[in-house]
Amino acid sequence: MDAAELIAGVGNGDRRALARAITHVEADTETGRAVLAGLYPRTGQARTVGVTGSAGVGKSTLVGGLARAQRERGRSVGIVAVDPSSPFSHGAILGDRIRMQDLTSDSGVFMRSMASRGNLGGLAETASGVVDVMDAAGYDVVIVETVGAGQDEVEVATATQTTVLVTMPAGGDEVQSLKAGLMEVAQVMVVNKADLAGADTAATQLRALLAIAGERPWKPPILKAVARAGEGVEELVEAIDDHQAHLRGSEHAEEARRDLARAQVISLARAALHREALDAARRAGLLEELVEEVAARRRDPRSAAAALLRGVKDGWARERD
Amino acid sequence: MDAAELIAGVGNGDRRALARAITHVEADTETGRAVLAGLYPRTGQARTVGVTGSAGVGKSTLVGGLARAQRERGRSVGIVAVDPSSPFSHGAILGDRIRMQDLTSDSGVFMRSMASRGNLGGLAETASGVVDVMDAAGYDVVIVETVGAGQDEVEVATATQTTVLVTMPAGGDEVQSLKAGLMEVAQVMVVNKADLAGADTAATQLRALLAIAGERPWKPPILKAVARAGEGVEELVEAIDDHQAHLRGSEHAEEARRDLARAQVISLARAALHREALDAARRAGLLEELVEEVAARRRDPRSAAAALLRGVKDGWARERD
Repeated sequence: MDAAELIAGVGNGDRRALARAITHVEADTETGRAVLAGLYPRTGQARTVGVTGSAGVGKSTLVGGLARAQRERGRSVGIVAVDPSSPFSHGAILGDRIRMQDLTSDSGVFMRSMASRGNLGGLAETASGVVDVMDAAGYDVVIVETVGAGQDEVEVATATQTTVLVTMPAGGDEVQSLKAGLMEVAQVMVVNKADLAGADTAATQLRALLAIAGERPWKPPILKAVARAGEGVEELVEAIDDHQAHLRGSEHAEEARRDLARAQVISLARAALHREALDAARRAGLLEELVEEVAARRRDPRSAAAALLRGVKDGWARERD
Repeated sequence: MDAAELIAGVGNGDRRALARAITHVEADTETGRAVLAGLYPRTGQARTVGVTGSAGVGKSTLVGGLARAQRERGRSVGIVAVDPSSPFSHGAILGDRIRMQDLTSDSGVFMRSMASRGNLGGLAETASGVVDVMDAAGYDVVIVETVGAGQDEVEVATATQTTVLVTMPAGGDEVQSLKAGLMEVAQVMVVNKADLAGADTAATQLRALLAIAGERPWKPPILKAVARAGEGVEELVEAIDDHQAHLRGSEHAEEARRDLARAQVISLARAALHREALDAARRAGLLEELVEEVAARRRDPRSAAAALLRGVKDGWARERD
């Protein structure tokens, strides 16, 4: 299938075309880029939701519950599970996926797991492309679940409108610590496993931390849930709907759309820029030359980096001449 | 004090000069860059150790124990604690720092906490600069502790020779999940809080995960510890010494030095490139123009990112003409 056929297929609800279109987007092929450009005008209808938080807090169980609750409301659901590309994590992925098995036979649900691609950036890039394809395919809700809670996840949050940050009660006297940047991008907070000791303390802490951040147009609600038992899932669906209504209805709608677009363009441009620069430096042999000098302590890494950049920019300028 | 005075002061063990030099490096001033260039030939003597892992696994307690054990061996210790810049995390930082209070009155210990600086990269950049200054100041061991376990931490691992990944037993049937990329950069693994149920399971899991990764010249040991009670800290010091001996003694020493230099140069160049590109795009008004088009769905984010890059590169080429 070429790009035009894929675009038509995705529009007609053809699951095979959808799967292939996503594969092209993931591999960042010429066809994938054409598909994204062709589908883009049809996007913007889905409620896009990111679910993030550290490993072990019960994100997958919560995403499963969330998907089922959305189905009960008659909404179709696309799920993107971002899996670490590390060979070390297969066990975790398997465990996660098993919890969603009942959803795979539902024709109103489309699940796709996506490998993260290491250090070069590009994770947020690919995730937002996959979200766009599912959005254009007509899924009412698109959920992106990330494994882990690092810089990648902060960036993946740029791919969705509503980010749900999942935490759990911290044991004993530990102060709950959250990845910098993650609380700032969350619109809904969930203390999962709220049947464990310390759930109220965790919620109070989150509230205090939010207060420090000062007034913002949207005040993130803090919910308690026991996802394993289905408790708190309805409240989560309502909180997400509230935030979506806020986004679409309020005077901030325009600004929110622009913020999302800005974050996406910057993130995409950064990944591409880094890739191109590294290619150029390698082709010129410049990188290894500078690495030798630094390894021998004849030059400090900072001035080597500056020389590398000058070389790369000169190369680009010469290409242009 | 100017750069020459700071360089001399750092060489003479003047703690005030050291503190000021680090402040300049953190702020990335002209003086800071000159100090780094001047000190660089004196670096390469310290054993540099990174300690990373998710929040709540007990990293700070372990770092405190590690520092005390190094002191008992007569080694001076520099500690860099990388704190999230988020206003949300002050509680956690405070809790962490309290555990190290006894070290602050020891003249053989120099502690510095360093704010992470948001999304623009630059964290690894600054951390490696601070490590270099402490190294040049003559500290025998320099420990970098990061809060959280994300992409940032993978990059900060490029600033140190030996990275210690700290985990703890996962409760119940949860499969322990680790941030992609983090296990690959770790040279020593510690299952802390090993008095909790599941410590042996966690260690077995780590061993199995390591086996998947295949043979490597250095086989990371997997240790158990109860940092709060001081258990396992001696073994950790020995494991770090073993890895340092491996680095310095083996046929891989040269290669390891080059790998570290390459990772540092790339990381520094990437941060600078991104900053410059964003500045150029903003100055030209190009970014907001493209953001408008994407927000209105007239253009997809990917092609907008490509246009942004073309514009930035054209601008650089014109500057050069």
